[in-house]
Amino acid sequence: MIESTDSDIHTTMSVPVVRHRGEQASRTTDRIAQEWPVAIVCNGISHAVMMCTPADLDAFALGFVLTEGIAARRSDVVDIEVVWHAASAEVEVTLVQHAFSELKVRRRSLAGRSGCGVCGIESIELLDLAAEPVAPGPFLSTLDPQAVARAAASLPDRQTLQKQTGGVHAAAWCNAAGEIVHVCEDVGRHNALDKLIGAVTFARASTQDGFVFLSSRASYELIRKAARVNVPMIATISAPTSLAIDIAKQAGIRLVAFARGDGFVEYAPA
Amino acid sequence: MIESTDSDIHTTMSVPVVRHRGEQASRTTDRIAQEWPVAIVCNGISHAVMMCTPADLDAFALGFVLTEGIAARRSDVVDIEVVWHAASAEVEVTLVQHAFSELKVRRRSLAGRSGCGVCGIESIELLDLAAEPVAPGPFLSTLDPQAVARAAASLPDRQTLQKQTGGVHAAAWCNAAGEIVHVCEDVGRHNALDKLIGAVTFARASTQDGFVFLSSRASYELIRKAARVNVPMIATISAPTSLAIDIAKQAGIRLVAFARGDGFVEYAPA
Repeated sequence: MIESTDSDIHTTMSVPVVRHRGEQASRTTDRIAQEWPVAIVCNGISHAVMMCTPADLDAFALGFVLTEGIAARRSDVVDIEVVWHAASAEVEVTLVQHAFSELKVRRRSLAGRSGCGVCGIESIELLDLAAEPVAPGPFLSTLDPQAVARAAASLPDRQTLQKQTGGVHAAAWCNAAGEIVHVCEDVGRHNALDKLIGAVTFARASTQDGFVFLSSRASYELIRKAARVNVPMIATISAPTSLAIDIAKQAGIRLVAFARGDGFVEYAPA
Repeated sequence: MIESTDSDIHTTMSVPVVRHRGEQASRTTDRIAQEWPVAIVCNGISHAVMMCTPADLDAFALGFVLTEGIAARRSDVVDIEVVWHAASAEVEVTLVQHAFSELKVRRRSLAGRSGCGVCGIESIELLDLAAEPVAPGPFLSTLDPQAVARAAASLPDRQTLQKQTGGVHAAAWCNAAGEIVHVCEDVGRHNALDKLIGAVTFARASTQDGFVFLSSRASYELIRKAARVNVPMIATISAPTSLAIDIAKQAGIRLVAFARGDGFVEYAPA
């Protein structure tokens, strides 16, 4: 059984700072985003450690195992339990036996494979640059032309942690009208996306029936993750990289970037 | 012998795009930043793959082995050679025997340890959260009060790739007056920092005699890397995370953030 049991207690903290303006300095406090090491443990075996904002860790773990291809579907995940420590956490994921067996085989062949999808690998041959095509769905034909602008305009108000700290990225799930349905925030861009995919899956919504809006740039690992869960479209506030465009084209994902209230640039048209 | 032999050929590329403004769409081209897998190979053994902008790769490799503690000093690195492929590169680093022996021992005990300093590890116990103190130098006593503002004001003009593409981070090396001495750019924040440390080292300058200015936020791995090469001060344009502040305090690094032309916030005072 999977249920969401997170608390927001650990997401921010207040610290003493000295604020400088020209020649003047004043002592005050500032609110900062927490960054904790969070281990993802699959069937008792520690798989990866990510530096994370410690909220929505159950959604994070569910999203991570889906976007990393460890679980092919939600039903491959039997249970998720978050174990909180003083300044770190472990998320214990219980996979069904066939998924865990495949993970063990993969771990033997991909020594060191873990993490955000890139850093953990040791040689270029182990890098997964071949994205399978996203399953075609009706979403793109229903998309409102103003959807991207609408999402861009309404995201800042939904970035609760960003408003407090100024230091976190957001990933939002939007419907075909561009209305924001879920928002997840994290100090890491790929963590925010994993949390979002987990949250959409927890809500029993389809990842094919909307688009992801990211407060960041579009780079390889974000598009690769989205491709694994059949997201049909990704919009980002900042620029894409060359590999992000390549992977989006391979997967048939519509990639738009520089998404602002008054327009956007389409890099991989559908 | 180490020499810088990079070319700028591969750093950006032009792609066809569709630009949308309100209801209007026009076909045009846009310049984007290249993101390539770059393998760091130490004495013939592939150690890590980073997604990188393929420029300054010799400086990147030198900075990486220094900030990851693989080489303790420049003289531990005998040779660096960049091998270019169609859309990837390998940097072959030759370490002196004692550094390579230590790396082999460490690799056996830290299974999967690689990459940006975090993602590649499998359990929290393997995470290096204890920074050694930075060796005290005279730099901070010579710092001009306006140095941070001066660096903040002059950085945008030096961000050549960012001006072309809008998608890359910069790391700058600044002297006590806040004058920018070196700038390195990359799609990855930690890569930009590694390139900078490598460039400073190539120039036979001391990493204790200036400060690092980053166009990004301050997070764990950036401060951890800077601590390993005794950088006395780091300024970032955006916010720090909780662990970045912790590591800076442990190491005795002066950490200032929200560094803009008119002021900054000091999180870990010297």
